[in-house]
Amino acid sequence: MTETAAPDYRAMWTELGLDLPNHDRLLEAVGQLYGDTYLTQVNRPEGMGYLDFVMSEVHGLRIKELHDFRASGGKVVGTYCLYVPEEIIRAAGAWGVGLCAGAEWAYDKVEQVLPRNSCALIKSMMGFKLGSVCPYLEEADLLIGETTCDGKKKAYEIMGQMQPMHVMELPQMKREKDRELWRSEIVDLIGVMERLTGNTVDAESLKAAIVEVNDKRRALQRIAAARAADPSPISGKDALLATQVAFYDDVPRFTQMMNTLADELEERVASGTGAAAKGAKRVVITGTPMALPNWKLHDIVERAGGVVVGEEMCTGSRYYDTLVSEDGATLDEMIDALAEKYLDINCACFTPNAGRIDDVLRMAQDLDADGVIDYSLNFCTTYQTEAHAVDQAVRDTKLPVLRIETDYSAEDVAQLSTRVEAFLEML
Amino acid sequence: MTETAAPDYRAMWTELGLDLPNHDRLLEAVGQLYGDTYLTQVNRPEGMGYLDFVMSEVHGLRIKELHDFRASGGKVVGTYCLYVPEEIIRAAGAWGVGLCAGAEWAYDKVEQVLPRNSCALIKSMMGFKLGSVCPYLEEADLLIGETTCDGKKKAYEIMGQMQPMHVMELPQMKREKDRELWRSEIVDLIGVMERLTGNTVDAESLKAAIVEVNDKRRALQRIAAARAADPSPISGKDALLATQVAFYDDVPRFTQMMNTLADELEERVASGTGAAAKGAKRVVITGTPMALPNWKLHDIVERAGGVVVGEEMCTGSRYYDTLVSEDGATLDEMIDALAEKYLDINCACFTPNAGRIDDVLRMAQDLDADGVIDYSLNFCTTYQTEAHAVDQAVRDTKLPVLRIETDYSAEDVAQLSTRVEAFLEML
Repeated sequence: MTETAAPDYRAMWTELGLDLPNHDRLLEAVGQLYGDTYLTQVNRPEGMGYLDFVMSEVHGLRIKELHDFRASGGKVVGTYCLYVPEEIIRAAGAWGVGLCAGAEWAYDKVEQVLPRNSCALIKSMMGFKLGSVCPYLEEADLLIGETTCDGKKKAYEIMGQMQPMHVMELPQMKREKDRELWRSEIVDLIGVMERLTGNTVDAESLKAAIVEVNDKRRALQRIAAARAADPSPISGKDALLATQVAFYDDVPRFTQMMNTLADELEERVASGTGAAAKGAKRVVITGTPMALPNWKLHDIVERAGGVVVGEEMCTGSRYYDTLVSEDGATLDEMIDALAEKYLDINCACFTPNAGRIDDVLRMAQDLDADGVIDYSLNFCTTYQTEAHAVDQAVRDTKLPVLRIETDYSAEDVAQLSTRVEAFLEML
Repeated sequence: MTETAAPDYRAMWTELGLDLPNHDRLLEAVGQLYGDTYLTQVNRPEGMGYLDFVMSEVHGLRIKELHDFRASGGKVVGTYCLYVPEEIIRAAGAWGVGLCAGAEWAYDKVEQVLPRNSCALIKSMMGFKLGSVCPYLEEADLLIGETTCDGKKKAYEIMGQMQPMHVMELPQMKREKDRELWRSEIVDLIGVMERLTGNTVDAESLKAAIVEVNDKRRALQRIAAARAADPSPISGKDALLATQVAFYDDVPRFTQMMNTLADELEERVASGTGAAAKGAKRVVITGTPMALPNWKLHDIVERAGGVVVGEEMCTGSRYYDTLVSEDGATLDEMIDALAEKYLDINCACFTPNAGRIDDVLRMAQDLDADGVIDYSLNFCTTYQTEAHAVDQAVRDTKLPVLRIETDYSAEDVAQLSTRVEAFLEML
């Protein structure tokens, strides 16, 4: 991670208004965590070298790219949730970056504006702002929120006092009238993006963006499919990292590099080369998203000798499992396709949300899982409440379930490790 | 409360499937609490005798009325939130009863299905079901939920496995398209109620219901207005009780009795007769609803010598402050009027929700408040997060604010009393 402290970046960070001493501390902590979690692994695919590089430049080169893009008149848009269609952002000629945060930061300041009992994801998102340590956030010309959960919905009101913010209303059901409301929100977003960029979103630019983002998802699907093999050709934490980076890296480059990684994984599957040992206990994790650099549970499972073979979460299958139809010829048809794809994501914010249970069961079967871990952040009401039905449905298929509720701190790692080890032994 | 244990009710409670020993314990506890909180007051309006009687028969006479109504073919509908238009229920010839619960009950069972960190209101609602102690719930032929907050939205999925449930989708914003969605939800509710009852909702029946419920709200408005006087002619806890009982009592009878109470309050204002001492510190409470029998904060404030003069909450001004327009001639026009009135309620589940701040400031001024208490239940994300903006706006008008976060337990009463006493002294 030493490159990130290069002097040329410091001028850029200063220009962005970052708190340099604290930002140094953050980068050092993330670098240390990355080294401990990732670089200690053996039998890694060579293709992970790209993600190692991306992480070593997480606040460096990528920020410089955004910075230069903006200097040349480009617009950067920050998002917090995969319901915000990145195709629209790209079709307007802007770049989107995911801003969900996975580390405890500046909670002392956060608790002055948010309830202490907010989930770690929301506290982290606010802490990165209040602590002035996130260059992605500071590069954003516009933030786009969404009404997925109470915590984020209300926190955006506070965030919106600090940076320009547009909030999309995600409906809470999936009936025809909800699809219409959601479609109109996408139409509104097109207007917002056109006003921000001065560009027009037309059938040509939207079609190109749809294909481009589908290509990214297709690359991630290839990686996900390779994990069905025993031994798995890639560790769960490496695969998780790929999805996390998908939210902020340059799209065509990322797609290319992930296809290269997928090529390698397919070769490894053919030759029986594993990142984990053959016969390692296979776990599917379902639940709340794991934002960068939240690798805690994957690390615990894999240090205990298990292997995570799938994530039914927003930083997982919910992001890449389905594509936007490329059959649309007109702008209207493409908007229909976007509305359909995005509303079909099965977040626990919907009621009912039976589709998620189907997804978990299907993944557990397709990936030959030995058990399921139902993961939620403390105070994540939607996933914590839905856990009751999800866990019951999984148990009904005779698969064991371990329920984990935690946050971003390292305080409970020893306790969680003990529980995970006992769970893996039982499988 | 001794009448509630009359033998004829026991047969009815058994028929409803109540857990009689536990139900006895609940009634005894509520009776004791009522005696301590209410019957120890001095200078009460005589009109409160009606509410004393209602409370003494809370699971007795009123349940018998519902029971007899159902025996004669009537339908009873349970609701948990004031966004569910009771006018529609009544226009279909059914009776609505509010089911929000304000006491800790069967939390051991609740925590097997809901996150321990759910708010007290939701845990109580589930505990009354799982503990089989709520005859209103068991008399309900249909429950109608709404998507106000994450906790209730997801808990309804579990409740819906135990009793027939229809959930209305409340939008999260208040734009024209949200009004259209909400209006369509009201239209859907009419269909649901027509199928349940076999009756048709027409312009005549809906008009009658609108006027009837408006009359109830007008009576409550008179009581609220009388509280602007110094001394206040009625204690805050007595006024709170009136709103709480408004959700389940017979509508025309309740309206009549509240108008009688209002007549008396207006006479007391004219003669300068107070329930509290003249010059007592006047407090407006804003925040999460206080479901029966949650009288905790009002009791603390008034035992400390203050007087609560208004509640900006669902068990308060949000319920009765605005009326449904009676100008509609057609069913469509009346549905428009209902959609408008209900969507104009300022719950913290909306984003943004600036109207609530206006309401709090206006009430504090109109009621000549010395201070505001911002009250929320622990884990009530929407109100706890909105508290940041509300409290700031109140302080900007130079009014002191005390923020209280609590639950239904009595454990923190001494601590809260100390804080409230210090706050009142400061005013």
